[in-house]
Amino acid sequence: MAKTITGFSKLSKSDKIDWLVQTYFGDSQSAKALMKQYWNSDKKLQMLHDEFIENTITNYYLPLGVAPNFLINGNVYAIPMAIEESSVVAAASKAAKFWFDRGGFKAKVISTEKIGQVHFTYDGSFEELSTFFKTIKPMLLNEVKPISKNMEKRGGGILDILLCNKSDLLDNYYQLHVTFETLDAMGANFINSCLEQFAKTLKSEAKHSLDGNLDIIMSILSNYVPNCIVKAEVSCAVEDLSDNPNISAKQFAEKFIQAVRIAEVEPYRAVTHNKGIMNGIDAVIMATGNDFRAVEASVHAYASKSGKYRSLTHAEVNNDTFKFWIEIPLALGTVGGLTKLHPLVKLALEMLGNPSAKDLMKIVAVAGLAQNFAALRSLITTGIQEGHMKMHLMNILNQMEATAEEKEKVVAHFKNNTVTHSAVVSEIEKLRR
Amino acid sequence: MAKTITGFSKLSKSDKIDWLVQTYFGDSQSAKALMKQYWNSDKKLQMLHDEFIENTITNYYLPLGVAPNFLINGNVYAIPMAIEESSVVAAASKAAKFWFDRGGFKAKVISTEKIGQVHFTYDGSFEELSTFFKTIKPMLLNEVKPISKNMEKRGGGILDILLCNKSDLLDNYYQLHVTFETLDAMGANFINSCLEQFAKTLKSEAKHSLDGNLDIIMSILSNYVPNCIVKAEVSCAVEDLSDNPNISAKQFAEKFIQAVRIAEVEPYRAVTHNKGIMNGIDAVIMATGNDFRAVEASVHAYASKSGKYRSLTHAEVNNDTFKFWIEIPLALGTVGGLTKLHPLVKLALEMLGNPSAKDLMKIVAVAGLAQNFAALRSLITTGIQEGHMKMHLMNILNQMEATAEEKEKVVAHFKNNTVTHSAVVSEIEKLRR
Repeated sequence: MAKTITGFSKLSKSDKIDWLVQTYFGDSQSAKALMKQYWNSDKKLQMLHDEFIENTITNYYLPLGVAPNFLINGNVYAIPMAIEESSVVAAASKAAKFWFDRGGFKAKVISTEKIGQVHFTYDGSFEELSTFFKTIKPMLLNEVKPISKNMEKRGGGILDILLCNKSDLLDNYYQLHVTFETLDAMGANFINSCLEQFAKTLKSEAKHSLDGNLDIIMSILSNYVPNCIVKAEVSCAVEDLSDNPNISAKQFAEKFIQAVRIAEVEPYRAVTHNKGIMNGIDAVIMATGNDFRAVEASVHAYASKSGKYRSLTHAEVNNDTFKFWIEIPLALGTVGGLTKLHPLVKLALEMLGNPSAKDLMKIVAVAGLAQNFAALRSLITTGIQEGHMKMHLMNILNQMEATAEEKEKVVAHFKNNTVTHSAVVSEIEKLRR
Repeated sequence: MAKTITGFSKLSKSDKIDWLVQTYFGDSQSAKALMKQYWNSDKKLQMLHDEFIENTITNYYLPLGVAPNFLINGNVYAIPMAIEESSVVAAASKAAKFWFDRGGFKAKVISTEKIGQVHFTYDGSFEELSTFFKTIKPMLLNEVKPISKNMEKRGGGILDILLCNKSDLLDNYYQLHVTFETLDAMGANFINSCLEQFAKTLKSEAKHSLDGNLDIIMSILSNYVPNCIVKAEVSCAVEDLSDNPNISAKQFAEKFIQAVRIAEVEPYRAVTHNKGIMNGIDAVIMATGNDFRAVEASVHAYASKSGKYRSLTHAEVNNDTFKFWIEIPLALGTVGGLTKLHPLVKLALEMLGNPSAKDLMKIVAVAGLAQNFAALRSLITTGIQEGHMKMHLMNILNQMEATAEEKEKVVAHFKNNTVTHSAVVSEIEKLRR
């Protein structure tokens, strides 16, 4: 059949690209030239990036920006952020400066427990299974030693193994529910390797010790980490809260708290509220080589843990003190994975002072809180579009291929005028007449 | 205070970098050289990327890979994926090939409605507010015309405005809940601009028509889009299901369905199950210039809509036919935002035949379903680590700065041996002795 291929992954990068552009592109030469334009000039460096995944054809660029002036627990950070959305770094920088002048951010790690599970079925009695589990638990821990010994040397390892009866959910369904401490590693490879060994031991011991039939379904870490929690907060006197002449500090505090309450009770708003938090979080996650899909899944599941999807941030005024905070699950690593491999990840971690996983949890939580503060501040005062369109102005100008001179004139014009797509287009057209 | 700066965003890129490397890096020259090594050689192109966001210092690279052979509704696609995780493109390619030989993927868009809300308080009666709303509804629609007329010309626009009484959730809290059709645009700017206009009209009309006090809290789209849904599925005779000699087709189907059922009932597993789906989805979202935070938030909130966090995919066997499907909310755009701006996004969209937003919804849903199929297939047969570590092997070799010759020998060795980090290290050390 046309447009299909066998053995694509075995082709050289150059042959892959040739097949692709000939099969899927009208102008194959310019498509090929574009892909190559994004290759790094350093061939060895490019090969490193090519080998991260299969079938790499080029480098997808995300802007790597920096938000300076983050005061966190008394230290000042410039936070690296990889993100395409135009207003995120600007908003983070503004929130950082605002809170810098009001004592900065406080953050602390509440817990660091990771979770993995061996899912299996057993067609005998739970009582028998339970006795069997108690008998083999030392063996489970012993046979995993070759995998766990290095982690244990560093102070981490397996915290506990529980047998869970889940047969009320599905017939004959049970779990080994295992908790881990993985220190500065995110721990996915370590946890999965341990779990697969537990499954092997469980299966082979069951064969000669149990009357019923035990079948392993799968062994896999959980990305849901409700006991790997970090909290970040800001606070100040209510009277110090406003720097906007159009709204008093007291009104600002009231409206801000109302906006947070709405996100606490109204799921349609909560989803967008938390999405804004993740704008800040993912940008740092990405720059530091962590896995944003894992963090997203965990954070949003945590937001829904009450049975209703809710805000991850909260705000209150108590004794004339305004307080705003976030509490989220974050399973991060500062060793392993891409951290030592991607040169820009190494750079980002160095920019942050080569933090431990715990310190990175704090920085990431702060980035999320700052982002949410900036978004709410815009929403309850000028509205989101004013700032957003100001940041987006340059994108519209680039789309219209504006010259440097045109850009300068249009930017000057919109210092005091509302940016909309059509207003920008008509300004440029005026200049070009 | 040391390490802080004012006016950072106003500095030139070069001055930003100088300040950063002098303030935060031990070896400032090599940090600076590294940042520059990632700049594009085409200065105009680099400036375009710099201007996407504020404070850009360099380009963060994600590998842009391609998964060929996706048969969707009778068309064959090579799907572009921007992702750092080593096994995602390989898994997608395998799942594509597997289902290509079994009739391919079917996908359809169920609905395309977007949502935005004006959140406000009113301290009078709901009855009065309700009468007032009916009176001003035509005016709300009329005053937004300058913003909505272009969208309406193309066949989209505002579908309806509802007044919602939310005072049971919070005192005096009400909403305008607005539904939109935004066609091929994701629609965030359009929706937010409409909402801000609604809020202006509402506020000014309330002033002279209502007895009580009406205050706008905020106006903002919702990223939660439970009526913007796409469904994708695969099916085949059970007997055609296995290509693995270690497991019969019937056993495979049973075990696969058990694994999906577990993710339907067990939140710890559901989070990871859905995270795997998002590996595929986000990679395409990113390559096509869409906003993955918006999609993540919506998808995970949708997974929790029953009050319990659940799997987004489902599987069954009926009349000896195996069926596996996904149903998810996806608000995507193929015009606006980065789509015409980022040259690699344009390239990715061209690779997909310049799809409509609806077609892109189908392709993205299929990428998620394929990823989940591949993950479950590994989990219930060989385990996840075997494939994952095979893909990760090259990363470990690069981390150890293996030469081309060493790589070749080690890769050959691990064709028939289990890849673990320590096994790879000891193989290289053997070669280097």
